[in-house]
Amino acid sequence: MTTKQYTAEILQYIPVFYIIWSDDLLSASEINVVEKAIANDDSLNSADKKQLYKWLDVTNPPKDTLFKSWKQLITKSGIKLVEHETYPLTVLSQKITAHYFKDIDFNEQIKHIEINLGIQPNHYNHLFEVQIDVSKNLSQYDATKIDRILKGKHAEVIDQFRSVLKDPLFDWEIHRDKETFRDHVLNQVQFLADKGYGAMAYPKAYGGTDNMEGYATIFENMMYVDGSLTIKFGVQFGLFGGSIQKLGTKKHHDKYLTKTGEAELLGCFAMTETGHGSNVRGIKTTATYDKATETFIIHTPGKNDNKEYIGNALHSKMASVFAQLIVDGKNEGVHAILVPLRNEEHELLPGIRIEDNGYKLGLNGVDNGKIWFNQVSVPKVNLLNKYGTILANGSYYSEIKNPNKRFFTMLGTLVGGRICVARAGLGGAKFALTVAIKHALKRRQFNDSVKVQEDLLMDYPSHQLRLTPLVASAYVYHVTLDHMMALYCDDSQEDKRQVETQVAGLKSIITWYANDTIQECREACGGKGYLLENRIADLKGDVDIFTTFEGDNNVLLQLAAKGVLSDFKAEFNSAGFSSVLKILSSQLSDKLATINPLYTNKVDKDHLYNPKFHVHAFEHRTRRLTYTLAMRIRSYIKKGMPSYQAFLKVQTHLMKLGKAYSVELAYKSFIAHNTHLEDPAYKALFEKLGTLYALNEIRNDASWYLEQGYLGSNKSKAIRQRVERLCTELRPHLNELVDGFGIPEHCLTALIAN
Amino acid sequence: MTTKQYTAEILQYIPVFYIIWSDDLLSASEINVVEKAIANDDSLNSADKKQLYKWLDVTNPPKDTLFKSWKQLITKSGIKLVEHETYPLTVLSQKITAHYFKDIDFNEQIKHIEINLGIQPNHYNHLFEVQIDVSKNLSQYDATKIDRILKGKHAEVIDQFRSVLKDPLFDWEIHRDKETFRDHVLNQVQFLADKGYGAMAYPKAYGGTDNMEGYATIFENMMYVDGSLTIKFGVQFGLFGGSIQKLGTKKHHDKYLTKTGEAELLGCFAMTETGHGSNVRGIKTTATYDKATETFIIHTPGKNDNKEYIGNALHSKMASVFAQLIVDGKNEGVHAILVPLRNEEHELLPGIRIEDNGYKLGLNGVDNGKIWFNQVSVPKVNLLNKYGTILANGSYYSEIKNPNKRFFTMLGTLVGGRICVARAGLGGAKFALTVAIKHALKRRQFNDSVKVQEDLLMDYPSHQLRLTPLVASAYVYHVTLDHMMALYCDDSQEDKRQVETQVAGLKSIITWYANDTIQECREACGGKGYLLENRIADLKGDVDIFTTFEGDNNVLLQLAAKGVLSDFKAEFNSAGFSSVLKILSSQLSDKLATINPLYTNKVDKDHLYNPKFHVHAFEHRTRRLTYTLAMRIRSYIKKGMPSYQAFLKVQTHLMKLGKAYSVELAYKSFIAHNTHLEDPAYKALFEKLGTLYALNEIRNDASWYLEQGYLGSNKSKAIRQRVERLCTELRPHLNELVDGFGIPEHCLTALIAN
Repeated sequence: MTTKQYTAEILQYIPVFYIIWSDDLLSASEINVVEKAIANDDSLNSADKKQLYKWLDVTNPPKDTLFKSWKQLITKSGIKLVEHETYPLTVLSQKITAHYFKDIDFNEQIKHIEINLGIQPNHYNHLFEVQIDVSKNLSQYDATKIDRILKGKHAEVIDQFRSVLKDPLFDWEIHRDKETFRDHVLNQVQFLADKGYGAMAYPKAYGGTDNMEGYATIFENMMYVDGSLTIKFGVQFGLFGGSIQKLGTKKHHDKYLTKTGEAELLGCFAMTETGHGSNVRGIKTTATYDKATETFIIHTPGKNDNKEYIGNALHSKMASVFAQLIVDGKNEGVHAILVPLRNEEHELLPGIRIEDNGYKLGLNGVDNGKIWFNQVSVPKVNLLNKYGTILANGSYYSEIKNPNKRFFTMLGTLVGGRICVARAGLGGAKFALTVAIKHALKRRQFNDSVKVQEDLLMDYPSHQLRLTPLVASAYVYHVTLDHMMALYCDDSQEDKRQVETQVAGLKSIITWYANDTIQECREACGGKGYLLENRIADLKGDVDIFTTFEGDNNVLLQLAAKGVLSDFKAEFNSAGFSSVLKILSSQLSDKLATINPLYTNKVDKDHLYNPKFHVHAFEHRTRRLTYTLAMRIRSYIKKGMPSYQAFLKVQTHLMKLGKAYSVELAYKSFIAHNTHLEDPAYKALFEKLGTLYALNEIRNDASWYLEQGYLGSNKSKAIRQRVERLCTELRPHLNELVDGFGIPEHCLTALIAN
Repeated sequence: MTTKQYTAEILQYIPVFYIIWSDDLLSASEINVVEKAIANDDSLNSADKKQLYKWLDVTNPPKDTLFKSWKQLITKSGIKLVEHETYPLTVLSQKITAHYFKDIDFNEQIKHIEINLGIQPNHYNHLFEVQIDVSKNLSQYDATKIDRILKGKHAEVIDQFRSVLKDPLFDWEIHRDKETFRDHVLNQVQFLADKGYGAMAYPKAYGGTDNMEGYATIFENMMYVDGSLTIKFGVQFGLFGGSIQKLGTKKHHDKYLTKTGEAELLGCFAMTETGHGSNVRGIKTTATYDKATETFIIHTPGKNDNKEYIGNALHSKMASVFAQLIVDGKNEGVHAILVPLRNEEHELLPGIRIEDNGYKLGLNGVDNGKIWFNQVSVPKVNLLNKYGTILANGSYYSEIKNPNKRFFTMLGTLVGGRICVARAGLGGAKFALTVAIKHALKRRQFNDSVKVQEDLLMDYPSHQLRLTPLVASAYVYHVTLDHMMALYCDDSQEDKRQVETQVAGLKSIITWYANDTIQECREACGGKGYLLENRIADLKGDVDIFTTFEGDNNVLLQLAAKGVLSDFKAEFNSAGFSSVLKILSSQLSDKLATINPLYTNKVDKDHLYNPKFHVHAFEHRTRRLTYTLAMRIRSYIKKGMPSYQAFLKVQTHLMKLGKAYSVELAYKSFIAHNTHLEDPAYKALFEKLGTLYALNEIRNDASWYLEQGYLGSNKSKAIRQRVERLCTELRPHLNELVDGFGIPEHCLTALIAN
């Protein structure tokens, strides 16, 4: 076996063939790329072309002996792969050919193959000897530009805020004692309020900038300092201040909103009770109106009816208390009332008892407490009366007649908080990913016995697979939450019910994602990830509770699913529940006609990478789950089961629908966003992240798709392989992708990330 | 529609039919049970029988109108369901019939149906009005008996140990400051040593009882007190003492073992380095033998070559240091050497530097530190020389000639530690499950508008599904780990390689299981789970690192998978790697013949609950994954890829095999154990737990089984439904099942669990 067997023209293709046959992932569209290159190559004669086509035949792949001879040919040349070249494969190919032949004209087709197959050195560098030039950066992307894309229209607000965080007050340090930690966090909150950040979402008349969207972005960035700061900030300005802003009227705004934004008046949001968390409507605290004195009597009747887990409870002077409003002996439902807690000397007022909730898994810089009210009297004016008020004659009045609707309108004001919690979770995930990936780009462990240096963790396929899809998800969720906040703040849209449904689902999947990500990053950093100094440990403790507060994820998912059912109901105009279900089922079943078998087994890259396929898969899942859910409920109800019991029966189904709907929504937001990207290189990068997200989500639910016959075995396997391959393709850009999150250097103190 | 339509004989069956048709899960075997009952019922005439058979026809189920009329019949009778009856359905049925007819002979067949369908009141109580008698316990099981089964032959040791934990020294309290926490834990360790627990696994001559198996059980029980105590205890007696016991010889035992077991000599196990964790063979610390002085010079050459994360580093007087042994300029591989660290005044000896690792996510009662050695000289005798020694002439000698084998023999002594870590993780999971389930059996939230009381969390299907399979897994893993420790301690088995492979995989899946379980329990308890006082939070922080230490799970899974490949290799006698793979593939492919389509769609209960099906499914998966793995590696190697690179290519495949193998092993251990149970009631309970474990594991990997064509869509769906149903079936026994873990009342201090 000598090189003389091949012409110089053919020899140029050998490294390419060697690479494409070294793995098992040669798809139809890939063969097509190579075939086209051969066809367009004028330097080849027809015998050459015939030979090359033969080597492309998947039904009769090159024999192992032939394959080995290629390897020998390459090895004997002594040529090394130079990874930082713009076209590393083309250069390798040319150098090898030049080693065996003189004065040869290089064809342009190898370059064509290299670009169109999207193969990168980290795909095939294990096959060759590699010449390393560490000074060269392999990624063609600029992290600053990525960050700029993510910041969007909020760039100025974000940049300014990030630079404010340079103040030594925000330096990272360990606080073990809750009292000193809480004092420190209070100082930070006060500092930010002084800079105007507390009032940011309030109207200009009250010291704000009317910028709720910007508020959400700085909220996320605050996580880079500390979770306790973020949450305490959110309680003071978002929950307490937000309840005054959204549930109160001008007199409340005038009296309290400016002081609240300045953190001069510290307050808390007293909704949850020991006995009632998720079921707010069942809370037991009462506010009974006394006509004679024109006051409300606030009272927590039973042992477990105290307000529980109230953030800022130990520092607050006032609480926005949610209670059953009783007027003239009639329960008008849950309303919020401002109740002073302490005097200027910070002594508790009569009838009020507050206890520290003590140490928690995380967020120990937040002073959570329990609050009991024993017949506490507050003036009538303290009722936050935007949606329900006491008239001069002492009777109750609300423009929203339906108590149910009134309740949900008031709770709707919590939606902004849910978006913020999801954003904070996302901020935690981004931080953990940045630490884990920077560590994996430095840390070496194990090696091939012939190499001097051990391999980087980031070069292990399993490490790529465990972290890269999480990075892609961070991008998708970032864009989605920006989009949701814009919708929420869009006053041209009166009815916010759909946004509420969507946020309920997204808050759930994103806070779970955040927890899973932080955990994966902790493990990916090994013992180093367990040390507080590397920051992941605190994130883990802090973000953990995000799945529970501002609405327990399991409850919210069911809410989202019920919203989907109602959405479909709206599609067919209003009608009784049962008849709606009937129409619904017939309409849906039309759209759920059997999937074409060609489709269920379509495995080529063009199809698998096509957003149309992903959207179809997600929409199909949502529709199918909605349809079967409706059918099941209908069948139970037809048998005479009460609807409460029927919904209980389908609880796990509801939750699955809630998740499916949220994933669909997130992906669609992301691809809609990407169409506006101008730079084609960055657009391609974002699209690749979207593809990885979509395929990974389909892979995670492959059992469902397979069960439904939507995916065939081969397609399911191909998706799995594509996910692994996309992770490898993104490997050269991981550093830029995490730098693109824009976590300021002064916040990124983790030792292993530097 | 009046009752007169039915005879009294038929009427008795109406509640049964009402129940079985109210859900969608009527399987062939269930219909069979009812058919048999009807056939055996002599009170029915042939017209009655015909009528009843007709109602059983799945192709033509009872119309909704008929169904509703049954409901009316039942409701009108005013009869309530009494859940605590021995045969609640039979009693209900009889009472209803008695309401409409007088002097009727009740048939015995309803009872037969009730027993054989295994339906329980919590299955159908939403269909009827319920008469509650809270004083009655619904479970027929006794937690003490379950605990007795789990304790097995170690009952005496465990009971004694649990009563020792009553000492106030073990009362739960919060320690935020690491110094005071560490002192407290050291006192606890000393106390247990004084009671003889430290030396427990050592020979009797050194104060022990030679009971390694018992040691593992008390290790798990220690988790009920505190994770830091458990780990510090394990470092002192298991790792440090264990290295002397297992790697040292009589002179070391005589000099140190008794003192170590008494905690008079505190020591640490210095293996991991900052630069080398998983890759122990690559550690940089050297022990260079100096012939002239007959000493070893211990040295950490580079900046990152210090010993890292060493437990007990701040309290220790001595370390068992793992270093590259250099004799006559030749590296003889990693060996352990005893190196004194501090003098009697607890001052560091010359050349030694130790730094505190600082605060961690958990285990802050363990004093982890970094250790540097700068040319520290120790006498020749300090080499733990069981597997390699320095001869009188100053040359190196080992009975194990192969350095590779020598290394793995020494590391094999870690296997006991890995079992203990898995057990400790399991202990943490049991504790969290006990808290979460006891909370869910008290906590109520939401209700049907007609009910006064809200529903118990534990009665929500989603809550059952999230916790019950985790309880089943705890039982399976308990039995498995007991079994593995018995194998490990069985001196009749010389070659421990298989046990090592098995333990590597089991440690991974069980510590991951433990983390997932604790997280699920935290979320299932909502905000209450986040408070330290409820104990789950600390467990979360403590158990987290179990996935990393004593071998990173991802690395261990690959080790397990490689062990499986070698196992198969052994089956076909020894031969070269490539030819082995070849034989292997042909042998395996025979056993992997296409699955019969009847089998892939078999959905009846008898089949799905049959352990033979589960074992077949698990074995098939292991074999299939091994076969495809071998094929892939072979194909890479045939193409000339070095085996290191080939194994890198299949890394995720290896890990999947490692997991599959471990699950198979765990399940087989469990069913083998259950065959020895004498009481049929408890045997049935354990078998049900095993079935839930198996079906849940298959469900979790349904995408793989569907891809392979091993499961058809219907079977996959049926398995999902069976998992949900088994959770419901186990609902009445959950309290006994968690009490059966035997966590002593004095340890179970969580407020929400009491």
